[in-house]
Amino acid sequence: MSDVLIINGPNLNLLGKREKEIYGSLSYEEMETLIQKEAKKMNLSVSIFQSNHEGEIIDRIQKAAGSVKAIIINPGAYTHYGISIRDALTSINLPAVEVHLSNIFAREHFRQNSVTAGVCRGMISGFGVESYILALQIGILPAH
Amino acid sequence: MSDVLIINGPNLNLLGKREKEIYGSLSYEEMETLIQKEAKKMNLSVSIFQSNHEGEIIDRIQKAAGSVKAIIINPGAYTHYGISIRDALTSINLPAVEVHLSNIFAREHFRQNSVTAGVCRGMISGFGVESYILALQIGILPAH
Amino acid sequence: MSDVLIINGPNLNLLGKREKEIYGSLSYEEMETLIQKEAKKMNLSVSIFQSNHEGEIIDRIQKAAGSVKAIIINPGAYTHYGISIRDALTSINLPAVEVHLSNIFAREHFRQNSVTAGVCRGMISGFGVESYILALQIGILPAH
Amino acid sequence: MSDVLIINGPNLNLLGKREKEIYGSLSYEEMETLIQKEAKKMNLSVSIFQSNHEGEIIDRIQKAAGSVKAIIINPGAYTHYGISIRDALTSINLPAVEVHLSNIFAREHFRQNSVTAGVCRGMISGFGVESYILALQIGILPAH
Amino acid sequence: MSDVLIINGPNLNLLGKREKEIYGSLSYEEMETLIQKEAKKMNLSVSIFQSNHEGEIIDRIQKAAGSVKAIIINPGAYTHYGISIRDALTSINLPAVEVHLSNIFAREHFRQNSVTAGVCRGMISGFGVESYILALQIGILPAH
Amino acid sequence: MSDVLIINGPNLNLLGKREKEIYGSLSYEEMETLIQKEAKKMNLSVSIFQSNHEGEIIDRIQKAAGSVKAIIINPGAYTHYGISIRDALTSINLPAVEVHLSNIFAREHFRQNSVTAGVCRGMISGFGVESYILALQIGILPAH
Amino acid sequence: MSDVLIINGPNLNLLGKREKEIYGSLSYEEMETLIQKEAKKMNLSVSIFQSNHEGEIIDRIQKAAGSVKAIIINPGAYTHYGISIRDALTSINLPAVEVHLSNIFAREHFRQNSVTAGVCRGMISGFGVESYILALQIGILPAH
Amino acid sequence: MSDVLIINGPNLNLLGKREKEIYGSLSYEEMETLIQKEAKKMNLSVSIFQSNHEGEIIDRIQKAAGSVKAIIINPGAYTHYGISIRDALTSINLPAVEVHLSNIFAREHFRQNSVTAGVCRGMISGFGVESYILALQIGILPAH
Amino acid sequence: MSDVLIINGPNLNLLGKREKEIYGSLSYEEMETLIQKEAKKMNLSVSIFQSNHEGEIIDRIQKAAGSVKAIIINPGAYTHYGISIRDALTSINLPAVEVHLSNIFAREHFRQNSVTAGVCRGMISGFGVESYILALQIGILPAH
Amino acid sequence: MSDVLIINGPNLNLLGKREKEIYGSLSYEEMETLIQKEAKKMNLSVSIFQSNHEGEIIDRIQKAAGSVKAIIINPGAYTHYGISIRDALTSINLPAVEVHLSNIFAREHFRQNSVTAGVCRGMISGFGVESYILALQIGILPAH
Amino acid sequence: MSDVLIINGPNLNLLGKREKEIYGSLSYEEMETLIQKEAKKMNLSVSIFQSNHEGEIIDRIQKAAGSVKAIIINPGAYTHYGISIRDALTSINLPAVEVHLSNIFAREHFRQNSVTAGVCRGMISGFGVESYILALQIGILPAH
Amino acid sequence: MSDVLIINGPNLNLLGKREKEIYGSLSYEEMETLIQKEAKKMNLSVSIFQSNHEGEIIDRIQKAAGSVKAIIINPGAYTHYGISIRDALTSINLPAVEVHLSNIFAREHFRQNSVTAGVCRGMISGFGVESYILALQIGILPAH
Repeated sequence: MSDVLIINGPNLNLLGKREKEIYGSLSYEEMETLIQKEAKKMNLSVSIFQSNHEGEIIDRIQKAAGSVKAIIINPGAYTHYGISIRDALTSINLPAVEVHLSNIFAREHFRQNSVTAGVCRGMISGFGVESYILALQIGILPAH
Repeated sequence: MSDVLIINGPNLNLLGKREKEIYGSLSYEEMETLIQKEAKKMNLSVSIFQSNHEGEIIDRIQKAAGSVKAIIINPGAYTHYGISIRDALTSINLPAVEVHLSNIFAREHFRQNSVTAGVCRGMISGFGVESYILALQIGILPAH
Repeated sequence: MSDVLIINGPNLNLLGKREKEIYGSLSYEEMETLIQKEAKKMNLSVSIFQSNHEGEIIDRIQKAAGSVKAIIINPGAYTHYGISIRDALTSINLPAVEVHLSNIFAREHFRQNSVTAGVCRGMISGFGVESYILALQIGILPAH
Repeated sequence: MSDVLIINGPNLNLLGKREKEIYGSLSYEEMETLIQKEAKKMNLSVSIFQSNHEGEIIDRIQKAAGSVKAIIINPGAYTHYGISIRDALTSINLPAVEVHLSNIFAREHFRQNSVTAGVCRGMISGFGVESYILALQIGILPAH
Repeated sequence: MSDVLIINGPNLNLLGKREKEIYGSLSYEEMETLIQKEAKKMNLSVSIFQSNHEGEIIDRIQKAAGSVKAIIINPGAYTHYGISIRDALTSINLPAVEVHLSNIFAREHFRQNSVTAGVCRGMISGFGVESYILALQIGILPAH
Repeated sequence: MSDVLIINGPNLNLLGKREKEIYGSLSYEEMETLIQKEAKKMNLSVSIFQSNHEGEIIDRIQKAAGSVKAIIINPGAYTHYGISIRDALTSINLPAVEVHLSNIFAREHFRQNSVTAGVCRGMISGFGVESYILALQIGILPAH
Repeated sequence: MSDVLIINGPNLNLLGKREKEIYGSLSYEEMETLIQKEAKKMNLSVSIFQSNHEGEIIDRIQKAAGSVKAIIINPGAYTHYGISIRDALTSINLPAVEVHLSNIFAREHFRQNSVTAGVCRGMISGFGVESYILALQIGILPAH
Repeated sequence: MSDVLIINGPNLNLLGKREKEIYGSLSYEEMETLIQKEAKKMNLSVSIFQSNHEGEIIDRIQKAAGSVKAIIINPGAYTHYGISIRDALTSINLPAVEVHLSNIFAREHFRQNSVTAGVCRGMISGFGVESYILALQIGILPAH
Repeated sequence: MSDVLIINGPNLNLLGKREKEIYGSLSYEEMETLIQKEAKKMNLSVSIFQSNHEGEIIDRIQKAAGSVKAIIINPGAYTHYGISIRDALTSINLPAVEVHLSNIFAREHFRQNSVTAGVCRGMISGFGVESYILALQIGILPAH
Repeated sequence: MSDVLIINGPNLNLLGKREKEIYGSLSYEEMETLIQKEAKKMNLSVSIFQSNHEGEIIDRIQKAAGSVKAIIINPGAYTHYGISIRDALTSINLPAVEVHLSNIFAREHFRQNSVTAGVCRGMISGFGVESYILALQIGILPAH
Repeated sequence: MSDVLIINGPNLNLLGKREKEIYGSLSYEEMETLIQKEAKKMNLSVSIFQSNHEGEIIDRIQKAAGSVKAIIINPGAYTHYGISIRDALTSINLPAVEVHLSNIFAREHFRQNSVTAGVCRGMISGFGVESYILALQIGILPAH
Repeated sequence: MSDVLIINGPNLNLLGKREKEIYGSLSYEEMETLIQKEAKKMNLSVSIFQSNHEGEIIDRIQKAAGSVKAIIINPGAYTHYGISIRDALTSINLPAVEVHLSNIFAREHFRQNSVTAGVCRGMISGFGVESYILALQIGILPAH
């Protein structure tokens, strides 16, 4: 049983290859390594999951119940229409934090909302991989 | 070949664990049992399918053509944006009934519409597991 | 004191004469007879009321308090703007079910909403007179 | 059996007393007389009905089936939200013409639409009592 | 001839029985008594009228012309769509005050507007029966 | 100097060839003849102008000042966006009547408005060539 | 410690000089005197504060906590966008009443809403200085 | 390594069985054969992929990087909400062409937009299987 | 009589001079030559017409009836508001194809729609002059 | 070759005859004279062009390239929908200034925007003929 | 007493330091000097006021009554939501001109409107400091 | 010169007294102490500023240029309409982070947007005082 499950949505696996001016040049694997290293410093065990499938993300959220203490989720483009993911997050009894590499408020109009953040404890958006590190620090504390 | 195929969308498998004040405390398995029992009374054979994946739901709808007489579908949150499911329902030549456990008109604003119901024979919303039972009674009759 | 009060809104009295391609050829009187016959099978006493007047519908809903166990209402076109009927349904302490002969989601855009269903237990839409029969079965059970 | 039924909606009975700068100074009774005189010239028998009640207007429309050859209707403010009147006009098999004393396109924004005209043969708006006279001439011809 | 006519719209007759957390536990009859008592103190004769029918409310407003000095109206849910009532208030030459028991701005989004208040002298909303008492004090003064 | 100038907008010259199910089978030339015949009966001289060009329609309206007593205009599709035509109608001091062959309220959503009718005396919509005949009768009377 | 704090928003200090056809000819000072005189009759001590600054209004609301029993606020144009004032009213534990000299429902479209009234006990709009007098009578009573 | 990857979204596999009045009677297999035959004439090797799953479509797009020269995509109903597919197309460095069998501008209002076409070189819509053939001809040319 | 009429709307004559980053550096005359050369290869005779005038475009479309077999139209900016052009295309009985040099879905929000494409057989957008060549190939086939 | 081309859109030729309360009583010819006189003082040669035709305005803008140094344009009602004029202004490489006689922000809601001003250097609105004089002073300076 | 008061809203004091690509490199002090120099040439005395506070801007406008002959205002970002400033401008009896350094119609969508310009004589937008110079020339003339 | 300037907007000074169910029971002073303690651990000097005045917040942001390395801002309710604050943040050349105590996506609809976050590096929302601590860690790093 890990402390924290990190869920990355569609196209995040292409990090470092995709739109570098927006997402930076760190590769997805380098990002995983960096997160794990930081988690270790905090004495946190972390599982990282990535999928391009809305359904797989929902499956994974459901399986998290009882096996992790908190979820960090970057729903990628599903942020803007994946109500089913919102429901999955509501369905389980775990604190979740939504993260974004880029600042969604500085992008296209259709990216300046989130259908999922409202059922998370909060959102951290715009700090690249640091968004995850910050979420790690905050994510497993009991909500208050 | 069953008489009726019941398709349950995302997060319905968590029934009884999820938001009990909205969905009640009956578990998903108990619901299946209850539906099967009622179907038996009506002399109907029923297959029940659940998936969190929009794609799998579409696959399953497509496979239903020629193998069942009617479909009962609770598209879960896909109700509100799953146009691909709407198209799948249109693609096959079977009567379908949309059901919802909760009354979607008494929930958040973004749940008070359906992109899928318009291609079904009708919708039954708000009666818990009874929504399915009612649909069973009505679902396999030829549309009029 | 009846078990169930059925309220039919404007133009439903013309059933069988009006837009048969949408509403079918059953006459209003035949529908009443059919509903009463089915109710009898369920051992339910049923009163049926029809009016084209929003005010009379409100009056009738108010008088239902203490004299029936449940209401089945087809508000006709008032479904889409009759907030006063919504308030009347809220005012009394009775379970109500909204029914529609046609599937409102398959009709004009301005018919794909309901200002009244949100204060009912649920909605059954699209099954012709069967919408009423289903509602009878479900309507008098205590809400859960 | 009259040739034409004229239906006047809410507040039209106050004609000549109400907002004269918009509706002119002709009284309602004078308007009735004037219409009857013109109808006589055309050899048309005309019944005129006025009500402030949406329900009564619907009742009257329904009763018109089989007893008149055409309807002229000025739905007053119900023009803008009386979908039940629209349905009543659809329910019966009679040509109808919608008339307005004032030009609804030159008034408040919320008056520049009509939920009822779409099921009439057409609309005549803005010519005071002449709107009715014109409708009389056109109204009883078979639609083409 | 009374000084003031008070018109209460749909469902207000259920006061004290209906949604007490919003409208309080005073009954409609007690409210009438209370208003009459207060009116007496101000030396005002008051008629109180209640109807669930939009048409009857319009009829009553029209009859008020020449028989009362001012109108106090709580249009209930018609506040939000009863343009015909707006027109009736415009048709007669009397100062009117719109009142609401509850604060419409603290309720559902669809209650936070008024199609009728724009043709009244003003609106008093949110003070229970006191809304009427305040309106009595202000209502019969000439507009300024 | 004619009594009345009739202006027909884009595509009306194709009458009888174009979408006959909407506009009927009368040809444009037959319509002109019919209108002239009816005008003669009324002792009215009529000029008829047709153009597909918004600019030519504006030019023609401007030239009408001082040379005709009234304008009848069917702006065709410019009805829905030709604000320049609206301004031309406002610029000259002549009564104008807007006419439509078809009932614009029974057509596509984007045809159910008029940017030009608000500066005319009124609109007659839905009666085929009769719309023009009615306008002839009403159009040259002084506005009241 | 006063009983009631009256807060007047931007441009109210120009009363009697500004748009007299809307706000009347009473000067701001005369209004203060009139309010104080009426308050005295009711045995109420009243402080009156006016500012054109959203921030000063917020400061003053905050300071009111513990020093007055109720607030009467006319937020002027901030009524329509001053969410910070709404939050200030929510922050303190005092009954508040929103007042307006003019009837906001009879003015420009952008003035027919209030972002602040929803957190007050109610709103009194349209009665000139009487709006304040009425609020004084109602304002310090415990909410019910 | 193929020259061109063709991706077909949800329900396209039912071609020839589904809504023939819109999509024609050619079967999906016949369409594949036809496209391959035409590609051969152009000396192009083509891979064709179909899935009902948004996630699988994204996976397939990602895998295309480095293995094909161009993508032709018919996103089916995901055209209207699949922002994740848009991001996948942006993520890889390949020219893409969006195609539709039917003319999306001649269908329901909710089908008259595309969230994916903006990141393609262009769109070809409405020519049945010819849409693909045209795209083949244009698709592998360098963008200009 | 030509096989195909190509109609180019406003500002297309400036091709090669105007916004080269969007439209490329090919001049309008070079584009005409290129299209004619390609048409010759296909054994098609082609007439090309350009106008900045909405009215002239409508005139030209009308004259095409009976003289060409198909129309290719690039309505330029009229794409977004020229309903009169839409009507002209509907008026004649010829297959039409809408083309755009640039990808309208990748441009300003107000360019991402078309009021004309819905009455064409389809749209080809984004391929520079190739859009025309593709349309030539497809345009004269009978619609299917 | 003139220094500045002034383009006046539809109905401006009626200046002094049209809606004098909005546009003043100066005639169009007097305005031309006045502008020429002022231009002379500034040592500027000015050509003035007026047309009611959107197409002619586009033609004239296109011809301006290479023959004038700057454009002053009052697009009249085309300001609100003439995207083709916007494109013409973008097509040529000349500084342009948009002017309006009246203050468009103080007029009807549909006049409070401009589809053309965004491609001009700026807009001067509300100062009658002075709007042109000011534009003359500013218009031929290089943009900064 | 100055002839003209110039009011600059929030962040204009940073001119020359802020977003030079939009506002140019002239510093605020240099702009003041330049304006004063030009005013001197016109024999106008000018006071210039800058504040980041909406309230201070309102205060300053109010104090201008009786002490200056005209106001030139650049409300900065308050242009888009500062209804209180609009009211202040309405409250005093002075001609005002709204100016903007940049062309607001060429910027973000939320900057393409003005809540304040409707109560000014007009707007000059897009000419850098020249916008002020032009306004000086026009501003103190009596409105016509 | 501090490393980081923290700016707190309206009503944040009431922390611990205001809506504790949303903002927690920590007082504003305790929050300041806590932040300073955490900053010390990170070897960061921090200045904290609070104001209810939009203008003062803008002033403070402007003064920060050259005196701090980064800004952390919680604009309170100005988040939703304070475009002037957005401009101030753009005006200076400093990285900024927007923070919120509560999760704005889980609150009223009108709080689920931000006009200021788009010009910050990112947003951290929903973690109480921890939002500030996280921002401290991230805020002074150079943007990447």
